[in-house]
Amino acid sequence: MRDGHDLRHHGDAEVRDDGAALVDLAVNVRAGTPPVWLRERIAASLTSLAAYPDGRAARAAVAARHGLPVERVLLTAGAAEAFVLLARALKVRRPVVVHPQFTEPEAALRDAGHTVDRVLLREEDGFRLDPSAVPESADLVVIGNPTNPTSVLHPAATIAGLARPDRVLVVDEAFMDAVPGEREALAGRTDVPGLVVLRSLTKTWGLAGLRIGYALSSPEVIAELERAQPLWPVSTPALAAAEACVEPRALAEAEDAARRIARDRARLVAGLASFAPAGVRVVEPAEGPFVLVRMPRAAAVRRRLRALGYAVRRGDTFPGLGEEWLRLAVRDRETTTGFLAALATALDAPA
Amino acid sequence: MRDGHDLRHHGDAEVRDDGAALVDLAVNVRAGTPPVWLRERIAASLTSLAAYPDGRAARAAVAARHGLPVERVLLTAGAAEAFVLLARALKVRRPVVVHPQFTEPEAALRDAGHTVDRVLLREEDGFRLDPSAVPESADLVVIGNPTNPTSVLHPAATIAGLARPDRVLVVDEAFMDAVPGEREALAGRTDVPGLVVLRSLTKTWGLAGLRIGYALSSPEVIAELERAQPLWPVSTPALAAAEACVEPRALAEAEDAARRIARDRARLVAGLASFAPAGVRVVEPAEGPFVLVRMPRAAAVRRRLRALGYAVRRGDTFPGLGEEWLRLAVRDRETTTGFLAALATALDAPA
Repeated sequence: MRDGHDLRHHGDAEVRDDGAALVDLAVNVRAGTPPVWLRERIAASLTSLAAYPDGRAARAAVAARHGLPVERVLLTAGAAEAFVLLARALKVRRPVVVHPQFTEPEAALRDAGHTVDRVLLREEDGFRLDPSAVPESADLVVIGNPTNPTSVLHPAATIAGLARPDRVLVVDEAFMDAVPGEREALAGRTDVPGLVVLRSLTKTWGLAGLRIGYALSSPEVIAELERAQPLWPVSTPALAAAEACVEPRALAEAEDAARRIARDRARLVAGLASFAPAGVRVVEPAEGPFVLVRMPRAAAVRRRLRALGYAVRRGDTFPGLGEEWLRLAVRDRETTTGFLAALATALDAPA
Repeated sequence: MRDGHDLRHHGDAEVRDDGAALVDLAVNVRAGTPPVWLRERIAASLTSLAAYPDGRAARAAVAARHGLPVERVLLTAGAAEAFVLLARALKVRRPVVVHPQFTEPEAALRDAGHTVDRVLLREEDGFRLDPSAVPESADLVVIGNPTNPTSVLHPAATIAGLARPDRVLVVDEAFMDAVPGEREALAGRTDVPGLVVLRSLTKTWGLAGLRIGYALSSPEVIAELERAQPLWPVSTPALAAAEACVEPRALAEAEDAARRIARDRARLVAGLASFAPAGVRVVEPAEGPFVLVRMPRAAAVRRRLRALGYAVRRGDTFPGLGEEWLRLAVRDRETTTGFLAALATALDAPA
């Protein structure tokens, strides 16, 4: 717990144990399992487990997908490993994290001994990025785009404007492939000094259990991060998945999924709007596969939803948010309809 | 390259690329693939990849296998991750590595900024441990048992005698499950102050590609290492494998494999003895799933073996060894017979 925020609380804790029977709107990962074709590709890799992992083909495939040379790509055991590498390998004196956002980057920085300053984006600004709020002295800036949990998509130009000589600018694009056309993506850009883009294959492909992600940056930064990695950091099944997930067919499927998510999100947001008289407010425009909502007595509503069979993510563990916030994963029509009915019940119940 | 030794050279580099067609005596991993029953257990885990890994069941299973509470167990992404955690998380001022041995612990310590002292065990002592060679001031001591690449099995009591107050004693038991009865194992001991035992599931089970291993130590040291780990450090398939590999049925299979390795090794050592007139010397007694041999013009012999279709591990990248050393993995009767015939050819060839 830091400043009252448990930075190590994540959505998976909300659906563990007794949560097994709950409908999960707490975790920002594709519901269900990876698609069958992908599971088969991963399963095929199990016959070569006796060999140490050889990441070269996957690294080349990821580089090609972003039009980059391999020296600008580092495969990691999930974005979580990348945060630890950034925190431990780079010579950084004044790291700044733009909140509210995914808490793991700050936790990793603190665990590595850093003092972390926070820039808190404000509800009254729609949690949009105010570049002037980032101190000039910051030599590491971490921001998510689209941002978890606010679902705000910052303009690429605004983020790129945070770049400075002698500053590392980390953009967590873990959810960017859920944005149609990946508009506002900085992945693949080589004209932004100090840029580090983090990507995950976890969310779109239902691969949270496999631990695979990657960092894109200058050859110099990539080499520094790589030196801090353990040998053979990414498993053979994860490498197989990475290669498969950047193939044109997979990219097309991800784009379809992004458009479906946009439709599903619109349905969820419209449904939530009907609870405006009860004080429910959605942060808009929402561009990620989740929405952030504010409502009176959110903690009690969350407990009632749980009793009704629905797990949602508490918002109060995110710096800048309080007890009145909840994060909801975008799900399919049927799930959303059921959830909205449950929410109606939860809101009607006496406090 | 440090002191002329490339600490980051590993056997897998000897069978990559053009090595695909070679018979592999270079890598110390079970030949072929994991057993079918194990592959099926791992494949079954692929249906739950959408969830973040939950390591609790695997951790409890590993703890039970060693008769320890879970607070004394940390699952890691292979032993390689454990070396990095030890190098980065512990407050250490004077680390000492007992050589010749697996080079990754020293490489990880150096990468973390430490100055590493070496204790070099000597050929004339049969590479046996001389406890008096370890400086009293060492506050971290790393030793392998049985040792890669010498195949020497040190007495547990001799290693335990290296324990001191305020010293962390790291025993890499990555190959201990290839020793019948795991005699001389320190895993499971709680009476040795500062003891950290590292285990791998890679070698016996042909799981090098999966990245799974574990550390056993005091609850305090385990907690320190755990704080330096990324979130979700071990993948779901690796957790499934860990659980499966510590079941009684798997332990019995490993014990059978250890006895088979002992027979196969005896056959290899006997065959090598016939080359004594050509100057071939085996380090004995060999107790691991590999043997260390010394022979004249070993580099040339290695190149000729490669031309004959056999990959063996060069010894000169291990501190304390020179160009005249080779490491050979223990393989089945047929492979060994073929290898010995190739060696005869390679040794006869003109220099």
